[in-house]
Amino acid sequence: MRDIGIGVIGTGFMGKAHTFAYRAAGGIFPGSLQPVLQTVADINSSAAQQAAKQFGFKGWTSDWRELLADPAIEVISITTPNATHKEMSLAALAAGKHVHCEKPIAPDAATAEEMARAAQASGLVTQVGFNYIKNPVLKLAREMIANGELGEITGFRGVHAEDFMADPEVPYSWRFDRTGGAGAIADLGSHIIGMARFLLGPISEVNAELETVVKSRPIAPGASERRAVEVDDIARLTVRFARGCGGTIEANWVATGRKMQLGFELHGTKGALVYTQERLNELLYYPAGGNPKTTGFVRIESGPQHAPYGLFCVAPGHQLGFNDLKTIEMAEFLAAINGGPKAGPDFQEAWEIQKIVDTAIKSSQLRQWLPVA
Amino acid sequence: MRDIGIGVIGTGFMGKAHTFAYRAAGGIFPGSLQPVLQTVADINSSAAQQAAKQFGFKGWTSDWRELLADPAIEVISITTPNATHKEMSLAALAAGKHVHCEKPIAPDAATAEEMARAAQASGLVTQVGFNYIKNPVLKLAREMIANGELGEITGFRGVHAEDFMADPEVPYSWRFDRTGGAGAIADLGSHIIGMARFLLGPISEVNAELETVVKSRPIAPGASERRAVEVDDIARLTVRFARGCGGTIEANWVATGRKMQLGFELHGTKGALVYTQERLNELLYYPAGGNPKTTGFVRIESGPQHAPYGLFCVAPGHQLGFNDLKTIEMAEFLAAINGGPKAGPDFQEAWEIQKIVDTAIKSSQLRQWLPVA
Amino acid sequence: MRDIGIGVIGTGFMGKAHTFAYRAAGGIFPGSLQPVLQTVADINSSAAQQAAKQFGFKGWTSDWRELLADPAIEVISITTPNATHKEMSLAALAAGKHVHCEKPIAPDAATAEEMARAAQASGLVTQVGFNYIKNPVLKLAREMIANGELGEITGFRGVHAEDFMADPEVPYSWRFDRTGGAGAIADLGSHIIGMARFLLGPISEVNAELETVVKSRPIAPGASERRAVEVDDIARLTVRFARGCGGTIEANWVATGRKMQLGFELHGTKGALVYTQERLNELLYYPAGGNPKTTGFVRIESGPQHAPYGLFCVAPGHQLGFNDLKTIEMAEFLAAINGGPKAGPDFQEAWEIQKIVDTAIKSSQLRQWLPVA
Amino acid sequence: MRDIGIGVIGTGFMGKAHTFAYRAAGGIFPGSLQPVLQTVADINSSAAQQAAKQFGFKGWTSDWRELLADPAIEVISITTPNATHKEMSLAALAAGKHVHCEKPIAPDAATAEEMARAAQASGLVTQVGFNYIKNPVLKLAREMIANGELGEITGFRGVHAEDFMADPEVPYSWRFDRTGGAGAIADLGSHIIGMARFLLGPISEVNAELETVVKSRPIAPGASERRAVEVDDIARLTVRFARGCGGTIEANWVATGRKMQLGFELHGTKGALVYTQERLNELLYYPAGGNPKTTGFVRIESGPQHAPYGLFCVAPGHQLGFNDLKTIEMAEFLAAINGGPKAGPDFQEAWEIQKIVDTAIKSSQLRQWLPVA
Repeated sequence: MRDIGIGVIGTGFMGKAHTFAYRAAGGIFPGSLQPVLQTVADINSSAAQQAAKQFGFKGWTSDWRELLADPAIEVISITTPNATHKEMSLAALAAGKHVHCEKPIAPDAATAEEMARAAQASGLVTQVGFNYIKNPVLKLAREMIANGELGEITGFRGVHAEDFMADPEVPYSWRFDRTGGAGAIADLGSHIIGMARFLLGPISEVNAELETVVKSRPIAPGASERRAVEVDDIARLTVRFARGCGGTIEANWVATGRKMQLGFELHGTKGALVYTQERLNELLYYPAGGNPKTTGFVRIESGPQHAPYGLFCVAPGHQLGFNDLKTIEMAEFLAAINGGPKAGPDFQEAWEIQKIVDTAIKSSQLRQWLPVA
Repeated sequence: MRDIGIGVIGTGFMGKAHTFAYRAAGGIFPGSLQPVLQTVADINSSAAQQAAKQFGFKGWTSDWRELLADPAIEVISITTPNATHKEMSLAALAAGKHVHCEKPIAPDAATAEEMARAAQASGLVTQVGFNYIKNPVLKLAREMIANGELGEITGFRGVHAEDFMADPEVPYSWRFDRTGGAGAIADLGSHIIGMARFLLGPISEVNAELETVVKSRPIAPGASERRAVEVDDIARLTVRFARGCGGTIEANWVATGRKMQLGFELHGTKGALVYTQERLNELLYYPAGGNPKTTGFVRIESGPQHAPYGLFCVAPGHQLGFNDLKTIEMAEFLAAINGGPKAGPDFQEAWEIQKIVDTAIKSSQLRQWLPVA
Repeated sequence: MRDIGIGVIGTGFMGKAHTFAYRAAGGIFPGSLQPVLQTVADINSSAAQQAAKQFGFKGWTSDWRELLADPAIEVISITTPNATHKEMSLAALAAGKHVHCEKPIAPDAATAEEMARAAQASGLVTQVGFNYIKNPVLKLAREMIANGELGEITGFRGVHAEDFMADPEVPYSWRFDRTGGAGAIADLGSHIIGMARFLLGPISEVNAELETVVKSRPIAPGASERRAVEVDDIARLTVRFARGCGGTIEANWVATGRKMQLGFELHGTKGALVYTQERLNELLYYPAGGNPKTTGFVRIESGPQHAPYGLFCVAPGHQLGFNDLKTIEMAEFLAAINGGPKAGPDFQEAWEIQKIVDTAIKSSQLRQWLPVA
Repeated sequence: MRDIGIGVIGTGFMGKAHTFAYRAAGGIFPGSLQPVLQTVADINSSAAQQAAKQFGFKGWTSDWRELLADPAIEVISITTPNATHKEMSLAALAAGKHVHCEKPIAPDAATAEEMARAAQASGLVTQVGFNYIKNPVLKLAREMIANGELGEITGFRGVHAEDFMADPEVPYSWRFDRTGGAGAIADLGSHIIGMARFLLGPISEVNAELETVVKSRPIAPGASERRAVEVDDIARLTVRFARGCGGTIEANWVATGRKMQLGFELHGTKGALVYTQERLNELLYYPAGGNPKTTGFVRIESGPQHAPYGLFCVAPGHQLGFNDLKTIEMAEFLAAINGGPKAGPDFQEAWEIQKIVDTAIKSSQLRQWLPVA
């Protein structure tokens, strides 16, 4: 199991999460490439230095381009704000590095397409941080749908709602910048759109309404000056999947009380599934056609029977957390680099998701149904 | 506490439920008019006779018009199939009877308008069987919203999903007849639309997609001959309320596994509420702004502090059931007849709900947003 | 279906509940004897008069013995404080009346035995108000256990906890009087003991600790004078069932936050069941040995497939409430009077339960295991 | 932040979990000693070799004593079967190593005492793997109790139930060996006893019944020869805490359907808490005395406001998993070695827990209450 050099750009929430996941993946997945934390980059030198020390990188830099020039680094993780994703990704691919980029990779589908085509042309492995679908119980859900255990799917109801923007005094930031690709539809909607695609395949048509609930934000914490918000706080989509069934999707970052309401309910002619990230080790399953006296929604608890849970813990009931999902993501990324199956989501998939985001934005402007191009 | 004579038309599920509720209302609500079960009507004589005996009516008839001619009867309950509602209601009002009619009262808004105007002109009390909103915890929800305890409402997510039509072999019946006013949008959608209005007031705009999942049904149980279904199995609405906020509403009678998923989640700037009829004695409430360490969704359990629960049971924790909600409905109907407040929903409200149903159907045909006329 | 005259003693919570249940039973259960509310008795004349009017009794009295002398009355319901149960029950039986008495029927097993023997000798039907076990999902639970669907039962964990005595300022009342038979073990413990017996049969041995948490209570609301409390606030029992398995039972009326935590978890070699009265329309069932990927606790929702739910409502999902359980209780009582099966719990069963209560009290005093005599 | 050399004995479930946790702790906890994985030992050479490679140890050995002789190793983790704990721990302490030993550290209190005294005399840091109490929401629970936010505690109901021994064909192993310290009371009971002590302090008195449900086990998987089981499958304890309140504790490894039912409900005069490891990111809290209309159990979700959750994830809703609890455990162990606060549980605490286990066993044999020595 050879070593592989890692460079991480960004030292915030996701920079730490990526590093944690690389460290963990090698130990938890037998046969994994063994990540070596080479260099961490942050525009803020002291943040870079401190991260290097704490996270265990061999070196640090305030210039992310140094990572691209380093032959010891084969993999680049990009965890900086959205607006930087394109430049860094393209440069990293050009430098022959495998790229993991946080979502969304681009502010619009055209940019995502450019990146996807570059990735395709490079022959390198890309990965985008749609970590939630790495959950073993969602792999089970996908498998049950694919196997026909739920019959023909008749409807999907998806939502990703949180409340971190509910307070009107949360200040303006890059997350509110349309040119940076943000808004609830991009930030949260991309997760539930990606989950919908993971389970049910392509979405062919969208009818959306996007709404800005908090019309302006302080330009800084506590500032009296405010700036108009141009992106959506809530996006409500009615969609049709290429497989035939319809559904709804909501992205909402002003959903008071919700910290991680990412989930779905879907019905098929032979069964139904219900999931929420709020209880990520559970999947509810209704099997139609059983003994009417004792049939109902089954609370499936994540366990070693749901790979790769068993690599984390040989016993059921112990539960995975968010960082474990991130570890699975990284392990699958490393496995793909090592010649294994392409687990994705890669830049191509990110482009597909971004197309739906763009279609939703345009549909809302036109107030009409639109096909996904 | 004077007596009041009751006539009930129909002896099925709702005929029994109405009778039960009248019997119970007098004993449970102090000061209530005391219902006297005069006559039950059913086109099937033996059903009428048996119902009279079992439910305790003084008499029975196979001709519902006899009830209108009986001066001892002041109140008529109409629990027959939808297609009969108009004729019976108008005749009963013309005969000077107070009318309780099961929902939907009419196949379209124009008919509902005619009925609502007749009710208005008569000066009599009407009531329509939107029983679920009689729940004490929903009265609490409405009160909290009205009092501003949730701040400004920013979004509503409502659903009424069941699975009684999920099996493609469920035979064709009046419920699938568009001219009878049915389809999931009318049958179930009217409940969640009514609940949305009860909580948040008028809906001003609708964008809907209605879908027929099971394209044809056997003409009778087990029949090989099938009839095309013209009504929706699933209706997905995006709506805007007159108060400003937006939302979504789903009506779905092919939702495998769901027996009574009637509920909502709504967010405000100061709090949130979550409800499902599957646990009708509970209301989840998130109060924003509390101690961050110990804040979360509060599971409020129905109790005597939530009127009129205390009339059913002086102690908390004992729980109300569906028939109790129906009893509250009837008690409020009788109270209105007795000169008390008009609790509704009356024919006017049923017309308002039907307007939204009609708008949803038309919106789906045109595939565009439509104002509610 | 002949009429049957009913007399009710007491007009409080349970007096109202009994009356409601009699009124409802006749209409809901086809073929039921039709209860006629003859006379209500309350030592407080005005309460009796008002109850008669509101609940629909033909007459009222402040002297309960008048009911015994009335040949039109065949059934006596006793809903007065515990201390009166013996005298009234024995007198009613002596007068040839069928007797429904609220629980506990007696302050100790010796008294209960006397009453049970009198009932036995009389040939009349008795019933005791252990209403919770009338729940259709508990009938299902019992049936599953009896059918061996859970295999050999290996353990039982039962609890009945509420918080209505948690506040030390709740004043002294007959419920705190040992000679009246009260304390948490008698008031609440009898319910969960009865439920345990209903499901698993006789309890053969008990090891209990009873504890008085609030040592004294005001003699009246707001009074500064306090009276020592001699009964238990919490009783913790370890038990052994005659069938072989062991278990625990807790009765607790100072369980802050709990309004009706009456329930159990039981394990068998082939499955498990979990129930709580807090969600009385649900039963959780774990079937061992299924597909490991999709096995888990099944949330069974009460429906028409669980008799007699279907008599209350033909559709699933509508839910029963407490008063419906009381109605089932009364319907079964009337059916037994009419020559049908003895559904119980009758005075004999109440005696069996009281033996366990007495054994627990004595076990706690001696601090040792004791056989149930 | 200096490096610290780690040696791990054992490569099974817990060997992997310890290694994972050491790797993670250094990166996640700022200022942590940085663990260096020196050597892993396993009596099975190839297991040791493979573990070294996969987990990233510098070396491996089949002789655990080599670790003690290595000056580069400051910390020894013992994850081998219970029977080995004493010898290894004492030897490691004698060699001047800090020791982390999985629970239970000893088969009986006398042995645990010997080990605790050796630890005390050595001045070294010890830790025992009671990982579940490292949960941030349990730290919150403890803090709330200590601060008096729940008032005076009146009762505790604790359980640790799983079903991994429910199948009678699970073969005999060291877990069934009394001289190895096992049985449900030791294996699972020690966790819930430790949790009870963590929250409420010392237990002073015990009344227990231990029961062997499966009387014999195959001597090997599928073997027809069976061996009698001498340890308990279920232990039911009634306890009294030194602070005054009482409670119950159940340990059960034949609890069909339960994978990790480790939790409690406790009541105080001002509030209540409910927890289950099945949903380890939630704590239910009932605050007494609030607005009666809107008071109920609050579902507190783990977030950055509950240290050290924020070190794992800056956003709420992302959730911790079992391995994260283990990481917290190791980080606290390293911090104590680094001169920080003694977080425990250490050998002293393990002795205290073992005393209660021993008392329960003896109480069951004598069938009487016993003080905890």
